[in-house]
Amino acid sequence: MIKVGIVGVGTVGTSVVQILRDNADVISARAGVDIVVKSGVVRNLNKDRGLDIILTDDVDEVVNDSEIDVVVELMGGVDEAFEVVKKALKNKKAVVTANKALLAYYRYELQEMAGTQAFEYEASVAGGIPIINALRDGLSANHIESIMGIMNGTCNYMMTKMTNEGVSYDAILKEAQDLGYAEADPSFDVGGYDAAHKLLILASIAYGIDAKPEDILIEGIENVSSDDIEFAKEFGYAIKLLGIAKKDANEVELRVHACLISQDEMIAKIDGVMNGISVVGDKVGETLYYGAGAGGDATASAVVANIIDIARSGKSAPMLGFDKPLEGSKLTLKSTDNINSKYYLRVNVSDRAGVLAKITKVFEDNNISVETMLQRPSFENSANLLISTHIAIEKDIQNMIKELELLDFVNSKPVMIRIV
Amino acid sequence: MIKVGIVGVGTVGTSVVQILRDNADVISARAGVDIVVKSGVVRNLNKDRGLDIILTDDVDEVVNDSEIDVVVELMGGVDEAFEVVKKALKNKKAVVTANKALLAYYRYELQEMAGTQAFEYEASVAGGIPIINALRDGLSANHIESIMGIMNGTCNYMMTKMTNEGVSYDAILKEAQDLGYAEADPSFDVGGYDAAHKLLILASIAYGIDAKPEDILIEGIENVSSDDIEFAKEFGYAIKLLGIAKKDANEVELRVHACLISQDEMIAKIDGVMNGISVVGDKVGETLYYGAGAGGDATASAVVANIIDIARSGKSAPMLGFDKPLEGSKLTLKSTDNINSKYYLRVNVSDRAGVLAKITKVFEDNNISVETMLQRPSFENSANLLISTHIAIEKDIQNMIKELELLDFVNSKPVMIRIV
Repeated sequence: MIKVGIVGVGTVGTSVVQILRDNADVISARAGVDIVVKSGVVRNLNKDRGLDIILTDDVDEVVNDSEIDVVVELMGGVDEAFEVVKKALKNKKAVVTANKALLAYYRYELQEMAGTQAFEYEASVAGGIPIINALRDGLSANHIESIMGIMNGTCNYMMTKMTNEGVSYDAILKEAQDLGYAEADPSFDVGGYDAAHKLLILASIAYGIDAKPEDILIEGIENVSSDDIEFAKEFGYAIKLLGIAKKDANEVELRVHACLISQDEMIAKIDGVMNGISVVGDKVGETLYYGAGAGGDATASAVVANIIDIARSGKSAPMLGFDKPLEGSKLTLKSTDNINSKYYLRVNVSDRAGVLAKITKVFEDNNISVETMLQRPSFENSANLLISTHIAIEKDIQNMIKELELLDFVNSKPVMIRIV
Repeated sequence: MIKVGIVGVGTVGTSVVQILRDNADVISARAGVDIVVKSGVVRNLNKDRGLDIILTDDVDEVVNDSEIDVVVELMGGVDEAFEVVKKALKNKKAVVTANKALLAYYRYELQEMAGTQAFEYEASVAGGIPIINALRDGLSANHIESIMGIMNGTCNYMMTKMTNEGVSYDAILKEAQDLGYAEADPSFDVGGYDAAHKLLILASIAYGIDAKPEDILIEGIENVSSDDIEFAKEFGYAIKLLGIAKKDANEVELRVHACLISQDEMIAKIDGVMNGISVVGDKVGETLYYGAGAGGDATASAVVANIIDIARSGKSAPMLGFDKPLEGSKLTLKSTDNINSKYYLRVNVSDRAGVLAKITKVFEDNNISVETMLQRPSFENSANLLISTHIAIEKDIQNMIKELELLDFVNSKPVMIRIV
């Protein structure tokens, strides 16, 4: 019998207890042993959770319990969780976590500490979708060319609703908050940080690359307007917040931002709160993984799968996929300035003669070649210019945006969305 | 160092050798050891394959080679392959196979023989998509409610072309043959047998159920016509050949046939030669896996991933996912007669008075309730009735079709397609 202790018995923790109880028949048959939750750590002991396990508010009672084989860390946060997990590893427990923030910062330290001990984290990326499993094991024969993922259900829900129902950003954010899809302070989701944590974890498995959130380009969906959605639809695009990892020779781009992506791509067809991750391998071509990226049961499904893995085998794949460093072909992080992309810009201008000529001059001066341009009337005496470019370099685009902003007939900071 | 012997060095075998050479850097880093192919078995030693491995036409030279750790079986066929794999297991080799026919018939015998030895077969279902991995490990916490898969790229290519370009069945079959997507004798693909082999493998992992191809409902796409495609488009459906496994209380339905499926479903959006498998778990909800289901490199990607798994760990998940039988809740195969579905029928009738009344009377007599009906002129003096039903029982539909066939104004055997 495998005994589990859970640090942080909230929504996901409660689901873990319930799944291990509800599905004990298949779980025991698949794992070859029974798996039971012995105890859990909560902050508030007075709240009735209706669970048949020992509850304590003292982490040490779980991580020091010699009867416990697997510590499941679901408390969230970074530094406190790191201390808990360290203690568990030191006490020779197997560890399972769903904590993406912890891993975004400390995954290499944790791999080092874990050594040959089991340390699993399937639930940390895209909830119930077994993407860690796929990338670390299923695609291990491939050089990974790119990863492109809808890794945040809140953003995808909002973009889908804006597209299908023409709702404004503010209205749909409020609705998402009312439905519990978005937090009262939504910035972690809509600002792209949540997706960035997940992207960093996947990038380590795919490329063996170490980067922290502050090292990479992270933008959100806050500036996407109904005008942009309309432009996207008109030109056959969907707008999605994507986490992107892309190999280019010995460099890897890592970035999170809103994207215009062709409606023909499988990933563009993923709507609502669902998550989906496209992985292109040099041998397998494109593969895609789709499912619920959040929710107690879906996330707990991944946590429990990891516990079953641990019950089945002493040693599995190395935590971050690499048993030893890549020799010779080590990859480094590409500077954000050097990213290549097609771009879409929305520039609000005063509606007077000569404006278009001056704008296009700024494009030309910065080596940016226009692919399509659309002018739409905006508020009184102003117009929105919706412009897509051919492939350009990030640095040039950023410089051009600064120049545009300085023009007296440009009414606000131009909005830019990258085209995939 | 892990040494590999390949029995059957055709397209996939050649790709395995090439991947292990081309991607040696990542493979060695991920596996922790070098993996090299020592030798391979071919039928014709005179053909130059441009490979830097020892070739022989004697299987025993590979399976009895004490230096070889992993035998990769890529020869195809059932009984001869079974003998080869048995010998390899007896010689304590780890075995990797891509042979779905072998597994459709002998998977339980092989599991028994393998015992604690590694026996892996990721490439046997859906080529490069790590679906075995996902189902056996990633979703192990779930009771699987259903599996619905596009598991045959040839059929999906043909259905997509018929839908998007209005091409006839015969014309597109010829094109698929010219492109190498379909064999000269296409019946294994278009008849649904290839998909059935794959479905049976997945059903074992999901449900622990043993069934052979002859135990289950297998139909192909041969009867799908342009009329059916038009009907489907008009009512918001796509037509796909699907392998379906569905749990209903203690029974499991297993069936392969053409389906009408709502265009809104993710699986309906998978076009061309691509494969995709939707798996619904009771806790995780729907997940979907998409990618190339065939081709040398994609299939070899899965074979090599299995070799890496073997190099990484002595013991992994039990071969068919269950370490011991399900207690109490053992599932049995549902009789085909008892399948519930909505149905679509195309009935070619002579165009004369009273026909519609007589047809609908036959529906009524068999407890079949019509949902939509469309009449289209066909050849001179005949019309096609395109009818969809509410949920009915397979046995009733089959009886009704027999009755319809006997009517003198019904010109040919009615065509039936199930609606998902």
